[in-house]
Amino acid sequence: MELVQYCHAQMDVTDSNGETAFHYAVQSDNSQVLQLLGKNASAGLNQLNNQGLTPLHLACQLGKQEMVRVLLLCNARCNIMGSSGYPIHTAMKFSQKGCAEMIISMDSNQIHSKDPRYGASPLHWAKNAEMARLLLKRGCDVNSTSSVGNTALHVAVMRNRFDCVMVLLTHGANADARGEHGNTPLHLAMSKDNVEMVKALIVFGAEVDTPNDSGETPAFIASRISRLVTRKALLTLLRTVGADYRSPLLQGVSAEQCSATAQHSFFSLERSQPPPISLNNLELQDLVHISRARKPAFILSSMRDEKRTHDHLLCLDGGGVKGLVIIQLLIAIEKASGIATKDLFDWVAGTSTGGILALAILHSKSMAYMRGVYFRMKDEVFRGSRPYESGPLEEFLKREFGEHTKMTDVKKPKVMLTGTLSDRQPAELHLFRNYEAPECVREPRFNQNVNLKPPTHPSEQLVWRAARSSGAAPTYFRPNGRFLDGGLLANNPTLDAMTEIHEYNQDMIRKGQGNKVKKLSIVVSLGTGRSPQVPVTCVDVFRPSNPWELAKTVFGAKELGKMVVDCCTDPDGRAVDRARAWCEMVGIQYFRLNPQLGTDIMLDEVNDTVLVDALWETEVYIYEHREQFQKLIQLLLSP
Amino acid sequence: MELVQYCHAQMDVTDSNGETAFHYAVQSDNSQVLQLLGKNASAGLNQLNNQGLTPLHLACQLGKQEMVRVLLLCNARCNIMGSSGYPIHTAMKFSQKGCAEMIISMDSNQIHSKDPRYGASPLHWAKNAEMARLLLKRGCDVNSTSSVGNTALHVAVMRNRFDCVMVLLTHGANADARGEHGNTPLHLAMSKDNVEMVKALIVFGAEVDTPNDSGETPAFIASRISRLVTRKALLTLLRTVGADYRSPLLQGVSAEQCSATAQHSFFSLERSQPPPISLNNLELQDLVHISRARKPAFILSSMRDEKRTHDHLLCLDGGGVKGLVIIQLLIAIEKASGIATKDLFDWVAGTSTGGILALAILHSKSMAYMRGVYFRMKDEVFRGSRPYESGPLEEFLKREFGEHTKMTDVKKPKVMLTGTLSDRQPAELHLFRNYEAPECVREPRFNQNVNLKPPTHPSEQLVWRAARSSGAAPTYFRPNGRFLDGGLLANNPTLDAMTEIHEYNQDMIRKGQGNKVKKLSIVVSLGTGRSPQVPVTCVDVFRPSNPWELAKTVFGAKELGKMVVDCCTDPDGRAVDRARAWCEMVGIQYFRLNPQLGTDIMLDEVNDTVLVDALWETEVYIYEHREQFQKLIQLLLSP
Repeated sequence: MELVQYCHAQMDVTDSNGETAFHYAVQSDNSQVLQLLGKNASAGLNQLNNQGLTPLHLACQLGKQEMVRVLLLCNARCNIMGSSGYPIHTAMKFSQKGCAEMIISMDSNQIHSKDPRYGASPLHWAKNAEMARLLLKRGCDVNSTSSVGNTALHVAVMRNRFDCVMVLLTHGANADARGEHGNTPLHLAMSKDNVEMVKALIVFGAEVDTPNDSGETPAFIASRISRLVTRKALLTLLRTVGADYRSPLLQGVSAEQCSATAQHSFFSLERSQPPPISLNNLELQDLVHISRARKPAFILSSMRDEKRTHDHLLCLDGGGVKGLVIIQLLIAIEKASGIATKDLFDWVAGTSTGGILALAILHSKSMAYMRGVYFRMKDEVFRGSRPYESGPLEEFLKREFGEHTKMTDVKKPKVMLTGTLSDRQPAELHLFRNYEAPECVREPRFNQNVNLKPPTHPSEQLVWRAARSSGAAPTYFRPNGRFLDGGLLANNPTLDAMTEIHEYNQDMIRKGQGNKVKKLSIVVSLGTGRSPQVPVTCVDVFRPSNPWELAKTVFGAKELGKMVVDCCTDPDGRAVDRARAWCEMVGIQYFRLNPQLGTDIMLDEVNDTVLVDALWETEVYIYEHREQFQKLIQLLLSP
Repeated sequence: MELVQYCHAQMDVTDSNGETAFHYAVQSDNSQVLQLLGKNASAGLNQLNNQGLTPLHLACQLGKQEMVRVLLLCNARCNIMGSSGYPIHTAMKFSQKGCAEMIISMDSNQIHSKDPRYGASPLHWAKNAEMARLLLKRGCDVNSTSSVGNTALHVAVMRNRFDCVMVLLTHGANADARGEHGNTPLHLAMSKDNVEMVKALIVFGAEVDTPNDSGETPAFIASRISRLVTRKALLTLLRTVGADYRSPLLQGVSAEQCSATAQHSFFSLERSQPPPISLNNLELQDLVHISRARKPAFILSSMRDEKRTHDHLLCLDGGGVKGLVIIQLLIAIEKASGIATKDLFDWVAGTSTGGILALAILHSKSMAYMRGVYFRMKDEVFRGSRPYESGPLEEFLKREFGEHTKMTDVKKPKVMLTGTLSDRQPAELHLFRNYEAPECVREPRFNQNVNLKPPTHPSEQLVWRAARSSGAAPTYFRPNGRFLDGGLLANNPTLDAMTEIHEYNQDMIRKGQGNKVKKLSIVVSLGTGRSPQVPVTCVDVFRPSNPWELAKTVFGAKELGKMVVDCCTDPDGRAVDRARAWCEMVGIQYFRLNPQLGTDIMLDEVNDTVLVDALWETEVYIYEHREQFQKLIQLLLSP
C-alpha cells in the first residue's frame, strides 16, 4: 500500500538525467514496480531522458523483454521519437530480438514504422541475419526505402554485413534497386573490399552496367579502386561474366565503338603492361551478343505454344541444395528467351531436387522465387545430423505445393519425377506423373506371383508426397514409405524421360491418336554442377588375415560402397554420353548444361558463401558457353 | 645278407592262395622287402593269385601307392589281365587315386589301355568325379568306346553317377553318342529315376528324338516308365522343350501326321484323363518349327559377311558363372542359324563374364567348348572364400587366350569390354577394344589438371588382362590395378555399345570415310538370367539413439549398400527399357533374351545341379520364345 502511494507520488518526477521512476524500474528490472507505476496514466511513462530515451527505448536498448511487455501493457507509446528513432528501431539497433518481437507482437504495425530521422524501416536497422529474418518472417516489406531512397540492402551492403545481404537477397530484395545518388547495391559493394558480396549481388541479378546519377557503372567503379588486390579480383570477376568496362565518358557511344577502349583499360589494369596491339574481335562481339541475349524477346507464350510442331524436353538432375545451379541456369534461359520455363517445354523430368523444381515449374513458381526458397529452406531442412528429420522438408513441400494438391491438378507441361520402388528386390523405377501412364504392351518383367501394392494413380497422388518420394536421398533422409530417392536409378533422368516419351507416343499411336503425337526435337539436360575429378588410391577389399587387416577391410568396404554409389549415380559421364548419342542418332538437338564447380559441394551444404560461389561459377559457365546458350534459345524460340 | 638270400629262395614260391612273396610284401606294406625281392627278375613278380590279382593288382586294390611305385620300378608288368582287367582298371575300380596316378606317371600309355574283357578304357571304370578328372586332365579320350560301343558317359549314366556324368559332359563327352543297341546316354538315363541327369544330358545337347536300334526315342522310353512320379516329371520336362513323343511305330510317318497321336498319348499320360477332343494346332506347328529351327541353314559365312549392308551388335551382360546362360543362348542361335556367332555379328560388347565370352567369340572358341570350360573353371576359380585368389582366374585366362596375345591380334568382329577406371572420383567407364578408339570432338569432361595415366593402347593391351579387368567384381575378386568390374557402370553394356558405335561412325564420317559406315540394324542383348523378384521390407537408415539402434543402423547401411548396388547394376529393368526405346526410335531391331530363373543364383555358384537347372530353364525359355528366336534368326540371316 505504501509502495503504491510512493509510486503515484513519484511517477512524473525526473532526476538530473531526465529519468522518471519508469526509467529506474526498467533499469532495476523490477516488473512488479513497473506494473504498479503503470496502473495510472502518467506523462513519465513516455518521458524522454537526457539521452533521448523513453523507458520503452531504454528497455529495448538493455534487452529487457519483460519490461517491454509491461510497458506496452501500460500503454507506453511506440511512436515517440528518440535519439535513434522509435523504440522498435532501438531494439533493432541493439539487436535485441526478444524486445523487437515483443513490440511487433503487441503492435504489428511497428514492423512498417519508419523512423522520422532517416525514414528507415526497422529492416534498415537490422544488424545481423537473425534480426532481419525476424522482421521478414513477419511480413515486412523487403524493398521499402528510406528518405534518401536506399533499401535495407543498400544499408547492409554499406555496412558490409554479408549475412544480412544474403537474408535480404533470399527474401526477394531487389539486387538492382537504385538508391541515393542512383547507386545500386552493387555500386556500393564495389568499394567494400568484399568480393563475396559482389558475387552474391551479381548472382542475384544485379546488373554490372547500370549507371548511377554520375553515369558511373559498378564495373567502372571497380576499375577505380585503389587497393590493387581488390581491384584485380573484382575486374577478373567481372570479366568472367562479360561485364562492360566502359568509362563513364563513353556512355553515349555504342558498345561496338567503345569496347576497344574498354578492353584497353581493362587489359592494362589487369596485366599492368602495354595493351595488345590487335584486340580479339571475337571477344568484343561476344560482349554484344551476351548483352543482347539477356534482353527479353517479348513473344507471347500462349501464341507460341499452339504454333510449336515439335516437343521440347527439359531434364533436371538430382543433387540436393545444388539444385540452385539448375535454378540459375533456368533463370538465364528465361531471361534470354523472355518466356517462362513452363511455356518453353512440353515435358519436364526431374529427379529429387530436380523433381521439386519440375513441380515448381508446373505450378508457375518463378525461379528467382525458388532461389530464395532454396537458400532459406536449407537452414530449416538440413538441421542437426544425417539422416535429417523429414518433418521440416515435408512442411516445406506442403507449404509450397499445398497439402491436398494432386499431381493431375495442373496438366501442362507434362511432368515426371523419378522414384525408386524399394519394396522389392531388384528395386524398380517409378515415375510420378501428372498424366496417365502409358500402357505397356511388352511382357511383364516378372511373373506376377509377388503380391506388391500397385502405385498410386496420378489423380490420387499428392504433389508434396511425390516430391518427397523422389527426394528421399538415402542416408540424408529416411525413405518415404516404400520409395527411395530416384537418383539411385536415374540421377540424370534424361534416358528415362526419353524412354517414357517414346512409350507414351507408341501408346498414343496404338490407341489411334497418332495425329496428336509430336516428335521430340530438343532435349535440354541441366545438371547440379560437376565436382572436380580427383585421383584416388584404388579401392580394394581383401581377405583379412588379422584384426588390423579386418579393420582395413571394413574401411575398404565403406570406401567401395561410396565409390559404387558415386559411380552409379553419376549424372554426368556415361549418362550424358548415352543421351547425346541417342539424340544424335534420332536427330534430336541435345544440350547438356552443367557447370564445373571448383569444389565438391555436398547435397546438404548450408554455407551461403559456398553456395554463392557455386552460383557464381554457374554464371561464369553461362558466359563461357554463351554460343551454345544462344543456339539453344534460338532453337527453343523457333516454331 | 640273410634276408636277401631268403628272398631269392622264396621269390617264385606260391602258397595255397597262389600268392608269392611279392603278394605278401605288398600286403604287409613292406617296401624294403619288396625292393629286395624285386632286385632280380622273377616270375613271382607278375604272378596272378587265385583271385586273379598280380602283386600290382593287389597293391592297386589296397591303395598302396608306394608298393605300386616299387613294383613298377622292379618292372612289374601293367598288361597282365586280372579278374577285372589290368592293374590300372583295378585302381580305377577301387577309386585308388594315388595308385592310378602312379601307374600313369610311370607308364603314360596306361591311360588308354583297354581291359581285354570289356574293351573298356580306365575312364569307363571311373566311379567318381575325382577319378574321372584325373584321367581327363592327363589327356585320355573322353569319347573312347568299349567293345559293345558304349562310352564312359553311357557307363556313368547306367551307374547313375551324376558327378561323373557332369565331369564327362564338361570335358566334351558326346551327349548323343550311340552305344550298345543304338542307345544314347539319354535313352539309358530315362530309366534311372534321375531327372537332374536327364536335364544335364539334354542341356549338353542330347537329342530327345534320336531312335535306338529298336526305333525307340528317349522321349518314348520316358512315356513307358512305370513309376508315375518319374514318368510325369520326365514328360513335363520334355514337353517344356517341345520334345516329340512319337511312338516307335510311327517313326516313318511325318511329324505333322503323327503329332496328333503323340500329343494324345502325352496328354493322357500326364493328365490321367481323356485327351482333349480338339488339339491345339498351334502347338503342333510349333513342334515342327522348333525342330526345323534347330537345323543348320548351311550358309557359308564368308559369303554372307560381304553381302551384309547393315551392322549387327551382340551385347553380353555380366554375371560370373551365370555366363553359362549366355553360352546356352548362343549355342541355340548358332544351331538354328548354322553360322558361328563370330560371323553373325559385326560388333560384340561384353561386361565381365560377358567380356570373357566376347573374347572367346573373337578367338573362335566354340560355345560348347566354353560351356565345358565354365563348368570346369568355377571349381578352380571359386575356391576358398571371397574375395577369391585371383591367381587361378588369371591362369585360366592366360591358358585360354595366351599370355602374350594383344587385343588387336584378331580384328573381326569388333569387340569391346567394359571396365571401370577407379583411380579417379567419379570413376569412369573404359572400353577395352580390338580397334582404335574413336576420337572425340566433345569438350573433355574435366579440366586436365589431374595427372592420370592414360589407358593402354589396344595394340599393347593384353587380352587376358582386359578380360581380367572387366571381370574384377568387387568383393568377389580384388581389383586388377586401377580397374574394377565393368558391371559397376554397365552390367548390361548395350547402351554403351550403341554410344560407342555412334561415336565410331561419327568419327569415320569426320575423317571422310563415311562410305565405310554401316548402319546398325540389329541389336541382340543376352542376359545371364533374371533372379526372381522378391518383396523386401523397406530399407531404412536412421539416427541411432542407443547401441541397439546403432547396430540396426550398421545393418541398415549394409542392406542399403546391397540394394544400391543391385539397383545400379541391374542389367534388366531400366537398362532394357532404355535400350528398347532407343532402338525403336531409330528403327533398329532390338532383341533382349534373358531367361527368368527359378532361384537367385550367385556369381560364384559352384553346385552343378543348380547350374544345370539354370541351363534347363534357359532351354525352356528358348522354347517358349521360339517365335522371337525364329524372327531373330531370319533377320540375322537376311542380307
